Amino acid sequence: MLISSVDNPKIKEIKKLQTRKFREKNGLFLVEGEHLVREAYKTGCLDTLILLDGTDFNLDVSTINVTENVLKNISELDTPQPMIGVCHKKTLNEKNGNVIILDNIQDPGNLGTIIRSAVAFNFDTIVLSNNSVDVYNSKVIRASQGLLFNINIVIGDLSIIIPKLKSEGYKIYGTKVTDGKSVKSIAKKTSFAIIMGNEGNGMSDAVSSMCDEFIYIDMDNRCESLNVGVAASILMYELGSKKV
Amino acid sequence: MLISSVDNPKIKEIKKLQTRKFREKNGLFLVEGEHLVREAYKTGCLDTLILLDGTDFNLDVSTINVTENVLKNISELDTPQPMIGVCHKKTLNEKNGNVIILDNIQDPGNLGTIIRSAVAFNFDTIVLSNNSVDVYNSKVIRASQGLLFNINIVIGDLSIIIPKLKSEGYKIYGTKVTDGKSVKSIAKKTSFAIIMGNEGNGMSDAVSSMCDEFIYIDMDNRCESLNVGVAASILMYELGSKKV
Repeated sequence: MLISSVDNPKIKEIKKLQTRKFREKNGLFLVEGEHLVREAYKTGCLDTLILLDGTDFNLDVSTINVTENVLKNISELDTPQPMIGVCHKKTLNEKNGNVIILDNIQDPGNLGTIIRSAVAFNFDTIVLSNNSVDVYNSKVIRASQGLLFNINIVIGDLSIIIPKLKSEGYKIYGTKVTDGKSVKSIAKKTSFAIIMGNEGNGMSDAVSSMCDEFIYIDMDNRCESLNVGVAASILMYELGSKKV
Repeated sequence: MLISSVDNPKIKEIKKLQTRKFREKNGLFLVEGEHLVREAYKTGCLDTLILLDGTDFNLDVSTINVTENVLKNISELDTPQPMIGVCHKKTLNEKNGNVIILDNIQDPGNLGTIIRSAVAFNFDTIVLSNNSVDVYNSKVIRASQGLLFNINIVIGDLSIIIPKLKSEGYKIYGTKVTDGKSVKSIAKKTSFAIIMGNEGNGMSDAVSSMCDEFIYIDMDNRCESLNVGVAASILMYELGSKKV
């Protein structure tokens, strides 16, 4: 099938997936470029491939060929790639393994970076508070380098999720810039979760009150705080057990 | 002095500092918002304060009051802050202490994050190849949280700077995703420099050939690489000696 009109109803439906509202309504999201499309395909999340007509690229999945103006219409990039994938959100697995919890993270680049580092350091589950940036936002997906397909993603109310984790034996580490114990002094636990707070304001008081212990990263006192993506990555690097 | 016209010659000169070309020509750059203006003032880099007329803010420095439309004209932010600082670039100190070298880093957010982490982990000098993103770009300054005022910045030709560091007894660590030694196994040296490469392509071959040793960060093999700001931060966290 070749579609050449941006007014084609199917194209209009796909374009709507640029907004969080429609991604949530339909359980679908978009990825752009060969690397991300292949990652989606490998993990069984790719439903439909949108391909610039004439591109030499094949996957065993429903494919729609489009003209350049249709591709540009769907793409969020200044320089569109010749392939875009329509993916379905994974059915959420149970939380397991090492867990990182994000309380109201807002920057898509930070979230993508944290997902990438989580996979690197053997964190199996990422929990996002309902008010966090949408994990299926295209900037998050690009910053994650497609690694969001390799991690359990749970989105919900932290005042329900954290007590549940505690009842399952998880130790909950909150993070503050200076309060608590240096991460270097923490003995590794089998089951634990690390909570990172909002870029400007840290963890909310309600979330803070649910922590078992607070940890920080040693640093020079001229630096008030680290970028949240960096701080999360260093904590996961220190505490993530190596599986390989 | 109150300036209300965007055609005022002084305002036109200041606005030109939004471009790298004029920042380099004049040795000046802009910072926006109270935090960054105060950081510039504290380190003696603030030449002129541009202040929205009527704002209750005082620093012992040449001040120009402006109307809102002039402020908006100079600002690069969607929501301008009431104060903007015109700063001069610091005379470069000699390279000293722990050094981080960036070979063709392009993303302003990554560079700002690396500067922030460098100060946190006691790196005194940051060296940038000539083809790197401009360190005085407003996005870099914001991402650095103003910490660029706390570090020696050297911009130049790495094929001259690296051999000079070596002749001064610096050990030069290159970074590759898997080649070399795990950073965990590296004994700390008194004088060393870590080189981080470009976001997509890593270090150039010419720079690679000047390294004494290569180091990497242990991670799960599902993750091909970390964000360069995260990788630099973890390496500095591991190797930076604590001064506090």
